[in-house]
Amino acid sequence: MFRTHTNGELSLKNLNEEVTLSGWVQTIRDKGFMVWIDLRDRYGITQLVFDEDRSSQELMESVKKLGREFVIQVTGKVIERASKNPKIPTGEIEILVEKLNLLNASELPPFTIEDETDGGEELRMKYRYLDIRRNPVKDKLIFRHKMAQKVRNYLSDKGFIEVETPVLIKSTPEGARDFVVPSRMNPGQFYALPQSPQTFKQLLMVGGMDRYFQIVKCFRDEDLRADRQPEFTQIDCEMAFVEQEDVLEIFEGMTASLIKEISGKEVGRFPRMTFDEAMRKYGNDKPDIRFGMEFIPLSPEGKKMESGFPVFDDAELVVGINVENCADWTRKQIDGYIDFVKRPQIGATGMVWIKYQQDGTLTSSVNKFFNEDALKKIAEKFGAKPGDLMFVMSGDTYKVRTQLSALRMELGNQLGLRKGDEFAPLWVVDFPLLEWDEETGRYHAMHHPFTSPKPEDIHLLETEPGKARANAYDMVLNGNEIGGGSVRIFDKTLQSKMFDLLGLTKEEAESQFGFLMNAFKYGAPPHAGLAFGFDRLVAILDGNEVIRDYIAFPKNNSGRDVMIDAPSAIAKEQLDELSLKVETRE
Amino acid sequence: MFRTHTNGELSLKNLNEEVTLSGWVQTIRDKGFMVWIDLRDRYGITQLVFDEDRSSQELMESVKKLGREFVIQVTGKVIERASKNPKIPTGEIEILVEKLNLLNASELPPFTIEDETDGGEELRMKYRYLDIRRNPVKDKLIFRHKMAQKVRNYLSDKGFIEVETPVLIKSTPEGARDFVVPSRMNPGQFYALPQSPQTFKQLLMVGGMDRYFQIVKCFRDEDLRADRQPEFTQIDCEMAFVEQEDVLEIFEGMTASLIKEISGKEVGRFPRMTFDEAMRKYGNDKPDIRFGMEFIPLSPEGKKMESGFPVFDDAELVVGINVENCADWTRKQIDGYIDFVKRPQIGATGMVWIKYQQDGTLTSSVNKFFNEDALKKIAEKFGAKPGDLMFVMSGDTYKVRTQLSALRMELGNQLGLRKGDEFAPLWVVDFPLLEWDEETGRYHAMHHPFTSPKPEDIHLLETEPGKARANAYDMVLNGNEIGGGSVRIFDKTLQSKMFDLLGLTKEEAESQFGFLMNAFKYGAPPHAGLAFGFDRLVAILDGNEVIRDYIAFPKNNSGRDVMIDAPSAIAKEQLDELSLKVETRE
Repeated sequence: MFRTHTNGELSLKNLNEEVTLSGWVQTIRDKGFMVWIDLRDRYGITQLVFDEDRSSQELMESVKKLGREFVIQVTGKVIERASKNPKIPTGEIEILVEKLNLLNASELPPFTIEDETDGGEELRMKYRYLDIRRNPVKDKLIFRHKMAQKVRNYLSDKGFIEVETPVLIKSTPEGARDFVVPSRMNPGQFYALPQSPQTFKQLLMVGGMDRYFQIVKCFRDEDLRADRQPEFTQIDCEMAFVEQEDVLEIFEGMTASLIKEISGKEVGRFPRMTFDEAMRKYGNDKPDIRFGMEFIPLSPEGKKMESGFPVFDDAELVVGINVENCADWTRKQIDGYIDFVKRPQIGATGMVWIKYQQDGTLTSSVNKFFNEDALKKIAEKFGAKPGDLMFVMSGDTYKVRTQLSALRMELGNQLGLRKGDEFAPLWVVDFPLLEWDEETGRYHAMHHPFTSPKPEDIHLLETEPGKARANAYDMVLNGNEIGGGSVRIFDKTLQSKMFDLLGLTKEEAESQFGFLMNAFKYGAPPHAGLAFGFDRLVAILDGNEVIRDYIAFPKNNSGRDVMIDAPSAIAKEQLDELSLKVETRE
Repeated sequence: MFRTHTNGELSLKNLNEEVTLSGWVQTIRDKGFMVWIDLRDRYGITQLVFDEDRSSQELMESVKKLGREFVIQVTGKVIERASKNPKIPTGEIEILVEKLNLLNASELPPFTIEDETDGGEELRMKYRYLDIRRNPVKDKLIFRHKMAQKVRNYLSDKGFIEVETPVLIKSTPEGARDFVVPSRMNPGQFYALPQSPQTFKQLLMVGGMDRYFQIVKCFRDEDLRADRQPEFTQIDCEMAFVEQEDVLEIFEGMTASLIKEISGKEVGRFPRMTFDEAMRKYGNDKPDIRFGMEFIPLSPEGKKMESGFPVFDDAELVVGINVENCADWTRKQIDGYIDFVKRPQIGATGMVWIKYQQDGTLTSSVNKFFNEDALKKIAEKFGAKPGDLMFVMSGDTYKVRTQLSALRMELGNQLGLRKGDEFAPLWVVDFPLLEWDEETGRYHAMHHPFTSPKPEDIHLLETEPGKARANAYDMVLNGNEIGGGSVRIFDKTLQSKMFDLLGLTKEEAESQFGFLMNAFKYGAPPHAGLAFGFDRLVAILDGNEVIRDYIAFPKNNSGRDVMIDAPSAIAKEQLDELSLKVETRE
């Protein structure tokens, strides 16, 4: 047996017991006549002690040959520590070692295996197996496991069945690019890796498996942006014989139970906000509602302002936020935020500020156009009080909202309003069914072509399809979309109408979606579902937003695994077998 | 709300309640003035009743328009049935329907959705989504889910962490062929799909995650034999700071808990059998020990027989089995089994039979060479009693054992000794470390190159490597290998020795395994693991051996999904983007 206990469990209760421990040498403190070693494993750290008085000479010699990250096994007696460490569970004891067995030596690791390491990101990714020894990484993987277990048990208890859908499927002309897999046995033919099990979960509903879920790997061959992975994990779910309300109920319950598990807090019923309201109030369909700073429009609904300030009066929308207790900001601080919104990624041309000073007077960057009375009226609209600072932006509605939303989030971050241990979930509902695409001059499905319009909006499909809302919903947590889904169309006539709106001919609809349409001929039940981005969900539940930290072996921004050095060239024989030839363009 | 109850839960307790149900029309019995419908969903069947006296004329007209597999919603009152059906949970009640809502019509399905269907395998695979509506298919998927949940909870309770390892990895020169995935962003380079997470789980051990598991899809581009799938699911496990005994203990416990869950029976400690013993007693390294018929050798250990019967006397091994109570078989019955072993797949040239007749006399197919006294002596060796039948085969040791093993299994099947509801697990241990490959004239690792020899056999690596046994183990259940694994080598010197034995130069070892070897430099702990074939495990636990039945959307023997018609050709633009050209050989 390699150990009687782990390195995280011994305490004064075990005093005088003879124990065997195994693990890695974390640190060695060598005082010559005495040597202390911190022995580490997944469960914690136990202090080992060797001293000239109580240990054999042979043992003293052996211990002096050890180095960092050596793997050892020791047997010894649990004794009380002279100077206790209250920060760790084993801090009251140490092991007086009687036997030392070197299990494996180690070369000096390329970075320190400590909570705060000296290794940069690239180096740690290359030696990810060493990085995983560090608590912050290890703990995140364990956290992920616990969340997955909790989700599975919650949904299983509610009668959901986890069904494994295939990974080798057929290429479909959906949004992003598929990864493809050449088939040796079917030369010239390819499988595709699924971007989601969408088709299969709808088929399972046709098959009567009325509560389905799966925690499943999905794949997307996209040009990677920061923190996007070519392979990612979804909690994929679908239900039959349900309405939107049933779906929201179940998955609100699931998320609340995760939050309860982590924080011990009951978050209660999730607020619901329409897409329209979210855009008006936060300029964003995934608002972080842990803090206020709601948008206040200054221009009248659907009209332009008449203030005498041309920048405002020419704009489609003038809108601002009130930043509480920041009127004392210096010009430099304010300019910092003006520069922020003028960054090319955000693209504003400028921003107006108004200070409601502690003494009750008002001043602004547009004093030339607004006298104090006018500023006072604006402050009233904003609900501002002395000491507050207002920012106002103007421009085209969508653009200005997006810009102001970016500012609001930046302020939230800078002012410490986005607290990692606070959870503010909400549902955003009533998304538009369609999006107008300027480039192609036609409508696209905002969610996907099987998303059902709201029954009361079906008549709009004939007249103003752009105004029709969908039975589609997103779950938002702390300013991140963590899940989204929709009620599906299961009626043939409505589905044809949708295809028409999307500008698909009968033939195109048949070739792209014929397979699922065919299945729908045999008694498709009403159904609805959603999917959570599991990597992101886990990160956010853990008070973090970097999903890469929650993936054991992530890929970098070029889709490379720098640890195993994949992808890589393969042998010509392998290509021949697959009837393939590489033709790299110059 | 689409339903207040499912179709499997109403009983006399709900008498007179108004309920709403949804589901598929399973059957319609139309007596003109009365119509009964069996309404089906995932949970069961509820009988609906419509009659001229109690139902509106409109309702009677609507119900007559329904057909098989139409999706309907009904509201009505729970009433007591006149003629009860004790076979189903809802058999005492029916629903007097007041409202009928047609949710979706259905074309006539291509086969009947009944437990016994009229659809052939190919047709059912093509319309798998309809096949899943049938209880035998649906129940198997639900069974699979329950087993996965049980495994996850069992291992989680034991401190195992499920870690998702990547699907897009690097091609390795292991046994079977990898599926590869061209990388668009890295032209001319390919990912590979994992045949198993072997490397990653060993890296997790190096990373200190000392109890790992994962229920994970793996991929193998093999020429498919019957019931082999290109994608399959493994329960993949690894532990650090353990010896073989610790691994056996944990996974024996896991399997026993699954068996307990299914059968309510405690199977107790699993018997252990060395590979050598299994081969001697059953001619097979995965013996079905639900029944006896152990092999009895007639030729003396390591020597030839001297019986006067040249077929026996020339053979390396003469070995037989005793089939109890079958002495009354006709010549035709016996000839059937002789023909069985002479089939080319089995390849025996013949077989001797000996009948120990009820009256105590003995007769055989070799009376010319063996008088009754000689036969009696054989019968004694076999422990046969009057009424028993003996079969004896002879030839080269390995061949004859394999042939006799096939006969034993066939007899087990025919005599009903392989009972689906009986579980006989065992461990087969002490596998040979190496296999001699005639073709290449060198040793191959029987398990894999990181498998540790038994410490007491390490000296044999210098002298008789073929005789060295490995710390490798298989879990066998009812004659199927359901899992296997090994203690891994973690010592550099021993690993080099292994590479030498396998005929790998330093350069080859470096290029094939350098990556893992490199990780092992930084303090690899002693570790061991195993993997279960989950598809097979589930089938066998459910008393079945056809794994395809337990996969929601399986592929056929050519690796095709006939339902979605994959693999398939992809567009030239897609190939261009991947810098690939298809070159089909003539």
